[in-house]
Amino acid sequence: MDTKTILKKVQEGSLTVDEAERLFARQPFEDLGFAKLDGHRKVRQGFPEVIYCSNKPDEYLVSIYKKMFEENGEVFGTRATRHQYELVKAELPQVTYDEVSRILKAERADKQHIGRIAVCSAGTADIPVAEEAAQTAEFFGTYVDRVFDVGVSGIHRLLSEMDIIQRANCVVAVAGMEGALASVLGGLVKNPVIAVPTSVGYGASMHGISALLTMINSCANGIAVVNIDNGFGAGYMATQINRLAESGAGRE
Amino acid sequence: MDTKTILKKVQEGSLTVDEAERLFARQPFEDLGFAKLDGHRKVRQGFPEVIYCSNKPDEYLVSIYKKMFEENGEVFGTRATRHQYELVKAELPQVTYDEVSRILKAERADKQHIGRIAVCSAGTADIPVAEEAAQTAEFFGTYVDRVFDVGVSGIHRLLSEMDIIQRANCVVAVAGMEGALASVLGGLVKNPVIAVPTSVGYGASMHGISALLTMINSCANGIAVVNIDNGFGAGYMATQINRLAESGAGRE
Amino acid sequence: MDTKTILKKVQEGSLTVDEAERLFARQPFEDLGFAKLDGHRKVRQGFPEVIYCSNKPDEYLVSIYKKMFEENGEVFGTRATRHQYELVKAELPQVTYDEVSRILKAERADKQHIGRIAVCSAGTADIPVAEEAAQTAEFFGTYVDRVFDVGVSGIHRLLSEMDIIQRANCVVAVAGMEGALASVLGGLVKNPVIAVPTSVGYGASMHGISALLTMINSCANGIAVVNIDNGFGAGYMATQINRLAESGAGRE
Amino acid sequence: MDTKTILKKVQEGSLTVDEAERLFARQPFEDLGFAKLDGHRKVRQGFPEVIYCSNKPDEYLVSIYKKMFEENGEVFGTRATRHQYELVKAELPQVTYDEVSRILKAERADKQHIGRIAVCSAGTADIPVAEEAAQTAEFFGTYVDRVFDVGVSGIHRLLSEMDIIQRANCVVAVAGMEGALASVLGGLVKNPVIAVPTSVGYGASMHGISALLTMINSCANGIAVVNIDNGFGAGYMATQINRLAESGAGRE
Amino acid sequence: MDTKTILKKVQEGSLTVDEAERLFARQPFEDLGFAKLDGHRKVRQGFPEVIYCSNKPDEYLVSIYKKMFEENGEVFGTRATRHQYELVKAELPQVTYDEVSRILKAERADKQHIGRIAVCSAGTADIPVAEEAAQTAEFFGTYVDRVFDVGVSGIHRLLSEMDIIQRANCVVAVAGMEGALASVLGGLVKNPVIAVPTSVGYGASMHGISALLTMINSCANGIAVVNIDNGFGAGYMATQINRLAESGAGRE
Amino acid sequence: MDTKTILKKVQEGSLTVDEAERLFARQPFEDLGFAKLDGHRKVRQGFPEVIYCSNKPDEYLVSIYKKMFEENGEVFGTRATRHQYELVKAELPQVTYDEVSRILKAERADKQHIGRIAVCSAGTADIPVAEEAAQTAEFFGTYVDRVFDVGVSGIHRLLSEMDIIQRANCVVAVAGMEGALASVLGGLVKNPVIAVPTSVGYGASMHGISALLTMINSCANGIAVVNIDNGFGAGYMATQINRLAESGAGRE
Amino acid sequence: MDTKTILKKVQEGSLTVDEAERLFARQPFEDLGFAKLDGHRKVRQGFPEVIYCSNKPDEYLVSIYKKMFEENGEVFGTRATRHQYELVKAELPQVTYDEVSRILKAERADKQHIGRIAVCSAGTADIPVAEEAAQTAEFFGTYVDRVFDVGVSGIHRLLSEMDIIQRANCVVAVAGMEGALASVLGGLVKNPVIAVPTSVGYGASMHGISALLTMINSCANGIAVVNIDNGFGAGYMATQINRLAESGAGRE
Amino acid sequence: MDTKTILKKVQEGSLTVDEAERLFARQPFEDLGFAKLDGHRKVRQGFPEVIYCSNKPDEYLVSIYKKMFEENGEVFGTRATRHQYELVKAELPQVTYDEVSRILKAERADKQHIGRIAVCSAGTADIPVAEEAAQTAEFFGTYVDRVFDVGVSGIHRLLSEMDIIQRANCVVAVAGMEGALASVLGGLVKNPVIAVPTSVGYGASMHGISALLTMINSCANGIAVVNIDNGFGAGYMATQINRLAESGAGRE
Repeated sequence: MDTKTILKKVQEGSLTVDEAERLFARQPFEDLGFAKLDGHRKVRQGFPEVIYCSNKPDEYLVSIYKKMFEENGEVFGTRATRHQYELVKAELPQVTYDEVSRILKAERADKQHIGRIAVCSAGTADIPVAEEAAQTAEFFGTYVDRVFDVGVSGIHRLLSEMDIIQRANCVVAVAGMEGALASVLGGLVKNPVIAVPTSVGYGASMHGISALLTMINSCANGIAVVNIDNGFGAGYMATQINRLAESGAGRE
Repeated sequence: MDTKTILKKVQEGSLTVDEAERLFARQPFEDLGFAKLDGHRKVRQGFPEVIYCSNKPDEYLVSIYKKMFEENGEVFGTRATRHQYELVKAELPQVTYDEVSRILKAERADKQHIGRIAVCSAGTADIPVAEEAAQTAEFFGTYVDRVFDVGVSGIHRLLSEMDIIQRANCVVAVAGMEGALASVLGGLVKNPVIAVPTSVGYGASMHGISALLTMINSCANGIAVVNIDNGFGAGYMATQINRLAESGAGRE
Repeated sequence: MDTKTILKKVQEGSLTVDEAERLFARQPFEDLGFAKLDGHRKVRQGFPEVIYCSNKPDEYLVSIYKKMFEENGEVFGTRATRHQYELVKAELPQVTYDEVSRILKAERADKQHIGRIAVCSAGTADIPVAEEAAQTAEFFGTYVDRVFDVGVSGIHRLLSEMDIIQRANCVVAVAGMEGALASVLGGLVKNPVIAVPTSVGYGASMHGISALLTMINSCANGIAVVNIDNGFGAGYMATQINRLAESGAGRE
Repeated sequence: MDTKTILKKVQEGSLTVDEAERLFARQPFEDLGFAKLDGHRKVRQGFPEVIYCSNKPDEYLVSIYKKMFEENGEVFGTRATRHQYELVKAELPQVTYDEVSRILKAERADKQHIGRIAVCSAGTADIPVAEEAAQTAEFFGTYVDRVFDVGVSGIHRLLSEMDIIQRANCVVAVAGMEGALASVLGGLVKNPVIAVPTSVGYGASMHGISALLTMINSCANGIAVVNIDNGFGAGYMATQINRLAESGAGRE
Repeated sequence: MDTKTILKKVQEGSLTVDEAERLFARQPFEDLGFAKLDGHRKVRQGFPEVIYCSNKPDEYLVSIYKKMFEENGEVFGTRATRHQYELVKAELPQVTYDEVSRILKAERADKQHIGRIAVCSAGTADIPVAEEAAQTAEFFGTYVDRVFDVGVSGIHRLLSEMDIIQRANCVVAVAGMEGALASVLGGLVKNPVIAVPTSVGYGASMHGISALLTMINSCANGIAVVNIDNGFGAGYMATQINRLAESGAGRE
Repeated sequence: MDTKTILKKVQEGSLTVDEAERLFARQPFEDLGFAKLDGHRKVRQGFPEVIYCSNKPDEYLVSIYKKMFEENGEVFGTRATRHQYELVKAELPQVTYDEVSRILKAERADKQHIGRIAVCSAGTADIPVAEEAAQTAEFFGTYVDRVFDVGVSGIHRLLSEMDIIQRANCVVAVAGMEGALASVLGGLVKNPVIAVPTSVGYGASMHGISALLTMINSCANGIAVVNIDNGFGAGYMATQINRLAESGAGRE
Repeated sequence: MDTKTILKKVQEGSLTVDEAERLFARQPFEDLGFAKLDGHRKVRQGFPEVIYCSNKPDEYLVSIYKKMFEENGEVFGTRATRHQYELVKAELPQVTYDEVSRILKAERADKQHIGRIAVCSAGTADIPVAEEAAQTAEFFGTYVDRVFDVGVSGIHRLLSEMDIIQRANCVVAVAGMEGALASVLGGLVKNPVIAVPTSVGYGASMHGISALLTMINSCANGIAVVNIDNGFGAGYMATQINRLAESGAGRE
Repeated sequence: MDTKTILKKVQEGSLTVDEAERLFARQPFEDLGFAKLDGHRKVRQGFPEVIYCSNKPDEYLVSIYKKMFEENGEVFGTRATRHQYELVKAELPQVTYDEVSRILKAERADKQHIGRIAVCSAGTADIPVAEEAAQTAEFFGTYVDRVFDVGVSGIHRLLSEMDIIQRANCVVAVAGMEGALASVLGGLVKNPVIAVPTSVGYGASMHGISALLTMINSCANGIAVVNIDNGFGAGYMATQINRLAESGAGRE
């Protein structure tokens, strides 16, 4: 209901002043005291809120998982530890945990996956971040092709997979060390590339800062970058793009 | 033609060995000696190559503009100076130059603009970068809404434009200084946000590095970042996303 | 008027739907196309908007100065050049320009100055930034004591001025090079110290980054820091604190 | 007593040379050998000294707590561990410890809280720093409103609390990751904002350096910044400002 | 077989379309799912692939060691832990482990060492990196002279070893702290110097960044630099140079 | 003559004490007062000294050019300006100047070029640095293949030149922006790659620091890096390697 | 006169209260309004104040030169321009100017030079900074040996001058680029080395930051570092050390 | 013995060729294989070598301690752990260990301390570094005054100790956080100040980098800086200066 409609209803008497005030109050979130759960997000952005588990105190975490599961029938969290898994599982037995991606979730059984994105990673050490991206996208209903261990130091490995990669609505490029994979991909595909620098490396990699700089300075077109190790962010944005490609906002 | 098709034609005799060799030779670019024009890019990526005018020697620039115009009937360059405009215009009178965005182009008359993206900028000083983004997207056939001077220090200016912004297939957020615009937008829209840090600011802005860090660390979802002042890169990627939204790769 | 009041008036019929809609529309700014002047700021924050002249295009600058002068009867801009002064003066002869602080303003004749702040600077080279702070505070109605050239390498110079400094509601500490002045002041006064690092120095001063780090890491209490060379920001915040001290929000 | 008064008394004979010498000796601190307790601070700055517990050797810590409690009847320390709590409690059973803020204190029962400041935090992970700020201010006699989990990625959460925030004499803005909260607040309130970057985040947040840069470069007015995670510093300065607002130095 | 030859064989019928397609498919690597072993590398680069053990999951590591040993009759890995040694040894008893260099390998008995390189290190703390360089070179068949503890603060120690160093086809200079060894060596020898900064040091050494900068800025000629602590990289490149010197590509 | 030989001659009387003293004095350089020309370098390192012209005072420059030409019959300087060219030419008419590489030299007519190195550059803007590398190598007698404009955003351009590149004894990879060219080359060739980051780029390229970090962190083997824009250094080291490959130190 | 003495004189009546007050007032500086000249410094530190000319406004500079010359019979300033020289000379014809060191001074004729320090520089481009150090020391009465162009890439040039260097009470080591000279000197002499990094270099030298880091991380003992290009600071401290060595504080 | 003297003795026959050769061989160090002990250092620099214990392997450490004790009758090491103390004590019962400074040494009983230096520290947390400086100086025979906990946030604590500090031949200023102590001291004393930044602090102190920058940029004269936490380096250089002051090189 927009402002004019609400006002008209008040004028007509079909809405009391108090009811209208609540509508204007704009508090589409539930206040748990320590946190304000953003229930409105699904309406506003199309996806429910996601839990960043890292360093959340135990009690908080369990109550947030339960609350969200109640509201949405599913719940998704990143960077969880095995300890957190066990805590949440005791209260919410539906949750499953993946050691590689560190994702802790309870997911509906009937999830459908549409479209097609590709998640590419440079080395085996980048797989945890790549899996975080892939599983995030899958949770939000995206079909994902995984293309791992295709770093630029053996370019033929990448070239042999180009058919799969070029079919994707969006490519996620995950790489640490010098992070050159994003630039090479950017030159070979026609759809957007989301680059994820990882903290894989040592010495002058400075925990991923070098890979981030490489990707930000890419000479190829159609590349944008998320934070170091932010597989979730890349999977999320790839899903947004894939959803646009499949259901076309322009034609809704 | 894929490998199997070419090989079959050779087997059948409908292609000579020499013709097939050329097809495998993969040199879809024109070698000018000092530069290898990537004529194949339009096929591979859907857009012709673009000229980065900054510091190009005069002779090179003019010949590249002419060559590209011949091939595509239009040509587009960024970061041109007025001096470069005059040089190119002498040889290619069709070109026009925009002082704000510093874009030097010759564009077909019959360009159609599809879909809808929004280019938002924080301050008036960010307009040159925002215009580079907007005009890039327009050149590649995208319809653009401009929403300028909506920095977060006067949040009501931004909120009053949300209708326009929320309609966009993709939002480009251009901001210097502390670059907080991207995060606020990321929380208010459902489609992707491409963040462009600018070098606007002084002192600890370190020529845009601070704004870049702000954007990369955004706590909002659906944000990815391009290089400082890279309006072109953002306009290009927004066009890729808008094209997917309008013509849906999944339904082609 | 708060939401409930507006709604009641609509219910009662003393406000039409259209009038109420405008009230909710919240657009308390004037849109010049290239800029959205924030006329509402004086209501919201207690001070009119200020112009950051650096790199503003000539036409924009002149029209902004005129518009603001019309609305407020005075106008204040920082980081102006002599060239900008001449431009604006041609249209608005009331403006005056100060070469040291680079402030370009037209100020009411009857300005009163209340309270007392102290602006301290370490070296003579820091005076332009210190003057920007002092004159900003004065424009907003604050009484200012200037205490210049009291850097810590001759601590007796500072100690001999402590009477003046300790009387201030707020102390602005302006220093480049190693920026130690703020810490020494922080240990000697009981009211807040706003530290302004300057870009004065060479070599490892890195254009003020070193002084900024010194001030942010201060071991003294009651110190907060603004951007390098941001005299305006310090003068503004000192004015906010001085205003609170003099007119006491708690007693309004 | 100022210099002239002391000298007159010596001249008159009402003060011996030795007594006068001690007055000039200016040693208003107690020397424990390993530390010089600054008992004079309460006179000079209006607040007693505070203990930074981090890494203090056990014996030192206990004796400092006891000494200060004796002198002031209360004592306040930050960044204490549970181990330190137990050590001090054994000798000084009055102390209490808060796990979240890590504050270890013994406080008078009859503390009054005047004025009003607001402590805002962006995410739940920023709460420890926000609590350090809030409890510091409370210890020094300030009334505090807590407004937590109002990060800019869900701007409606912040807007729904603006009534509380706008009433404050001073706003403390605590945020990690991209730290944009300070800029948005700076544009919405008329009193000073003290920004506290936190080390919350990962990757390019560089342990809080990114949030610090965001805040220092803020385009909003009336913002100054303290060190990363320095909740104490912000709570202290907010108290100074609140005290000025409530008891007005100008009217003393 | 080059393109023309393959095509001719297809034309002649001596190669089926499918066989030719496989030849063009260019997949000279074995796909283990989680990793693509680059068996082709020995052909392409002259050396088999090497295993970077750091953080490899246990199962992956063991299967990669076994696979490579099967294929090459030897296998070489860097940055292994004692735990990894025990794991691999259980399955592949031929492996040996060196605590200093952390190299885990199974090596043919009949290895010959040709040419001569020198590996110099500045301090005793740099020896692990120097040994990684030396043992890498030895594994690839290079004869190595070790010249350790010849840092520039006791220049006579270095000068007394110049005979050995000047005989080398390539000198590896390993140094942490200020990393000056590379520059001094660069001025004394006629063959290339590969500089390896190490993370040895404290404070402003910033984990090797300072030594890296020293070496990159060397005023001596004939120096190039690899990543911090990258002994392997230096030993590998020294081997390439030594191999060229001994078997002369130009005369093959 | 080694120490023992000299001493024996003194003992035998075939060398006076003074003559022997001079031999030990080790002053194989000519002292011009402001500079010590290292005439001995040709003996020690195999190449004469080279002049870094940047910021050399005019008088010094001319006298150094003349001195070196006298001694070696040729002379080579880098980073010269056109102004310096004219100054030197007035005294030494043999010199020639190349605007692109900024090399100012007088070269023997009968120079022979042996072996084969490849100098690759990513973009047209990198050509000045690539030419500095190529012409340095040529001056020192190396045969050079130039492979320009083969940046990784159009990987087919690079792949089509691999025949030439793989033949080289050493590959110089010159690239700015994200600098990914070095890694791709490192994976495709068997001989050493010397990577030269350039200052080409903008924003987060930080004048070449990003490209430098990319190259230092390369995941490919056989890569070492020189300073930003240091084409000379790369050409020099490539010459050392090429000379070893062609004349084999091991077989001398 | 110490506190007790003054008080006794007041008690005795040999000093009036006003006279005593002035003695306690501690204002041993002359206030020019824009600057507080520290006339007391010669008493406190043994040397008169020195003028840092860089960016001093013309009028200020001239009046400071005149004032200081009047007081001390000589005057010394660093980083002066030729323009400043002409300005000052018009009013104070005694001044002389040195183009290399950029020192502008008027010096007593009868200056004596005691002791012996050595100022060493790595390259010819470092001479301006080395001269600033040397001439500063000479102005303050120190005897200086200059040892220029002894960078570590030709170590024999340095070794041939060790006799002179080892005789010095203090060695100043001036070097840009990688700054290794300080470490080598530190290992060869028994007296203190003051290291001066210079901004000479390019690329990763980052205007002297690299050389600064090299020197700070030196593995040699007896080295301390001043700011980039701070020849004055090194010359000043060398003079302090030389003065101690020659006149022995312990025996005064 | 200088070159001429040796040669003359050879000529005269009082020295055999072999004896002379050894003299020229310049190997004044003992080679333990893993380390080259610099026994000559005492002759060359006036002090025996010191052991940096951090990360030394156990066997190496013990044998180095024993070797050095044998040679010099005493031995001195820094950054030792309690574990290392116990190891060494088992073999060399003379050693003592200080938990605060982490110095592990065996010292002659009859050590005399000459001259006078002052070691000042800003906070109690800086004491370990200050003690390393003080005990180093004492081991090398210097008399030390300790002035601890005199940070600039309570400047009266520092001023009350100026008598002691001004008597020193050299002042060591140890400070973390913002490191302002060095500048204040530099302005108050006439002899050299050696500044030691410490890693004490948090957030933007970046483990001491901020304090280092503060000290390097000091506006006071007569300050030079050593590495972060390098108490040893400061104590060593202070000893060099004190020795010069007491025994005057110029008068030897």
